[in-house]
Amino acid sequence: MQRAKDFREFREKMNQRILDEGHKGIQRFWALDTQAYKDGALPAKTKELMGLTASMVLRCDDCIAYHVIRCREEGCARAELFEAFNIALVVGGSIVIPHLRRAVALLDELEENRE
Amino acid sequence: MQRAKDFREFREKMNQRILDEGHKGIQRFWALDTQAYKDGALPAKTKELMGLTASMVLRCDDCIAYHVIRCREEGCARAELFEAFNIALVVGGSIVIPHLRRAVALLDELEENRE
Amino acid sequence: MQRAKDFREFREKMNQRILDEGHKGIQRFWALDTQAYKDGALPAKTKELMGLTASMVLRCDDCIAYHVIRCREEGCARAELFEAFNIALVVGGSIVIPHLRRAVALLDELEENRE
Amino acid sequence: MQRAKDFREFREKMNQRILDEGHKGIQRFWALDTQAYKDGALPAKTKELMGLTASMVLRCDDCIAYHVIRCREEGCARAELFEAFNIALVVGGSIVIPHLRRAVALLDELEENRE
Amino acid sequence: MQRAKDFREFREKMNQRILDEGHKGIQRFWALDTQAYKDGALPAKTKELMGLTASMVLRCDDCIAYHVIRCREEGCARAELFEAFNIALVVGGSIVIPHLRRAVALLDELEENRE
Amino acid sequence: MQRAKDFREFREKMNQRILDEGHKGIQRFWALDTQAYKDGALPAKTKELMGLTASMVLRCDDCIAYHVIRCREEGCARAELFEAFNIALVVGGSIVIPHLRRAVALLDELEENRE
Repeated sequence: MQRAKDFREFREKMNQRILDEGHKGIQRFWALDTQAYKDGALPAKTKELMGLTASMVLRCDDCIAYHVIRCREEGCARAELFEAFNIALVVGGSIVIPHLRRAVALLDELEENRE
Repeated sequence: MQRAKDFREFREKMNQRILDEGHKGIQRFWALDTQAYKDGALPAKTKELMGLTASMVLRCDDCIAYHVIRCREEGCARAELFEAFNIALVVGGSIVIPHLRRAVALLDELEENRE
Repeated sequence: MQRAKDFREFREKMNQRILDEGHKGIQRFWALDTQAYKDGALPAKTKELMGLTASMVLRCDDCIAYHVIRCREEGCARAELFEAFNIALVVGGSIVIPHLRRAVALLDELEENRE
Repeated sequence: MQRAKDFREFREKMNQRILDEGHKGIQRFWALDTQAYKDGALPAKTKELMGLTASMVLRCDDCIAYHVIRCREEGCARAELFEAFNIALVVGGSIVIPHLRRAVALLDELEENRE
Repeated sequence: MQRAKDFREFREKMNQRILDEGHKGIQRFWALDTQAYKDGALPAKTKELMGLTASMVLRCDDCIAYHVIRCREEGCARAELFEAFNIALVVGGSIVIPHLRRAVALLDELEENRE
Repeated sequence: MQRAKDFREFREKMNQRILDEGHKGIQRFWALDTQAYKDGALPAKTKELMGLTASMVLRCDDCIAYHVIRCREEGCARAELFEAFNIALVVGGSIVIPHLRRAVALLDELEENRE
């Protein structure tokens, strides 16, 4: 669980640090980002899967880790996550593979800890 | 409807041309691409929304057009498409906006023709 | 002037169309985008040059056109724009060149019309 | 042949326009770009195939058009170009497909005119 | 040799883990990826150089490491690899430089161990 | 200060290693890159802010670290850097956030050491 734990701690700490700076534009962007994934015309689960796919094709490991964690919180089964991985792989190509490896390693870590 | 029509015709014609070349790798990629969006652990509608979001953050107009058309065929409401647009905008930033303009122009065109 | 005029008209029309949809997230993103380039700790002119460079390395023609127009409104000289073009070229590589060609064609068009 | 002809004319005209501006950095970048594809430790043909693949995964239509034309001048057979297309497709994913369609349309146009 | 060794071990382990999941689409993508670089209308060596260039301009360290290793297995000389690095640098810009540093560090490591 | 120190040492060492290889194209690219940020029609400070914004939207941590250090050397205040961060965030989207976290962590590290 070390990787998921380290990721969360650094994420929390720096988010706080950035928001404390008091830049209105950045604070509002953070609010928009949070709001975008809430239940609306589409349910949160679908939105998290969309966020996961977008993060994979853009190849951002931290974003992928965040959405894998959130997808699981919204009840996504492992098979559903692999469907998202497959779409990201087809859309984004083999360049996505290193990120897929790390996503699956994280997913295994989360499942082993029933987190 | 001209834009949607032109897009489809060029797409069909060139897909045929490419597949007729007989390159096994390319033919198989085409098959994988088609297969990825079929009902599976996730329904086709969710997959098309994921494909749409991925296409927007990667900023590919033709891919966006294709997935907007397919999302509508799978029954996505306009409000659902705007949720996808919003997530793509937040993830991908203002650089997505020109593609969003063209996506909405196409969506309007499709709705005006009840296609 | 046709290209600059067409670009502006489509931009204005679709921006209105998108904002009229009433999606709060998208409306707020638009506001953030506008706000980001206003005079603040850095002057608007510097911010527009930064927006131009970012648009060039991300290779978005519409974004480049918008920032070239805004840079001129903020008083950037042609030589200053070419410095921005040069940095974008060095950072982003030869893949930026086709966009640089179109940026200079637009700039010439704007200068010929003393716009 | 219209597309290849238009592409070349705009390319030549704007290259001249940009170089005439007299910005030393930009002029030197142009020289580096030309030099990179000349025979060296690797032959020009291999280098053009590398440039083509890079252009396809970065999804730049003008760059793709330029390298398709140059690959043919260096004696690449159609089957060799399709191998490059296949690698670009696997590395870059389905997002490359719209560019592949336009590349094949250009290639057909060039072959029909025995250019 | 630690970096090359760690890279290979994680790569092998996670590839196995992903393929064992049994997702047909992902398994087929893996097969396509392997097949694309085999001798065909172009020799494997040329294809690996194309894969290396594509990986550098897309800025994927793991992909670059993999293709540097494979290029050496196919007999690429150091001077040939530097030609590929140069083309990637010109096409992709200074943003490629950090990846070039890591590629050369890996190459040095491989040569020191006559691997 | 460990991160800034490690970054600089690896950067210096590998730059030397690459330039010692003697590839003329690569050496000239390095010279162009250095030259681009010198005082010219725009002051070095503005150019570094442009380089920083470009690096953030292209999501290159090493490039961001380099330009944060250089911006501070050119006298940028913390508030000016946050304006650049904000523009990069708006242009590039939430995918920039992980890089923003690391940029602020580095900036804090630099300020704590009055470096």
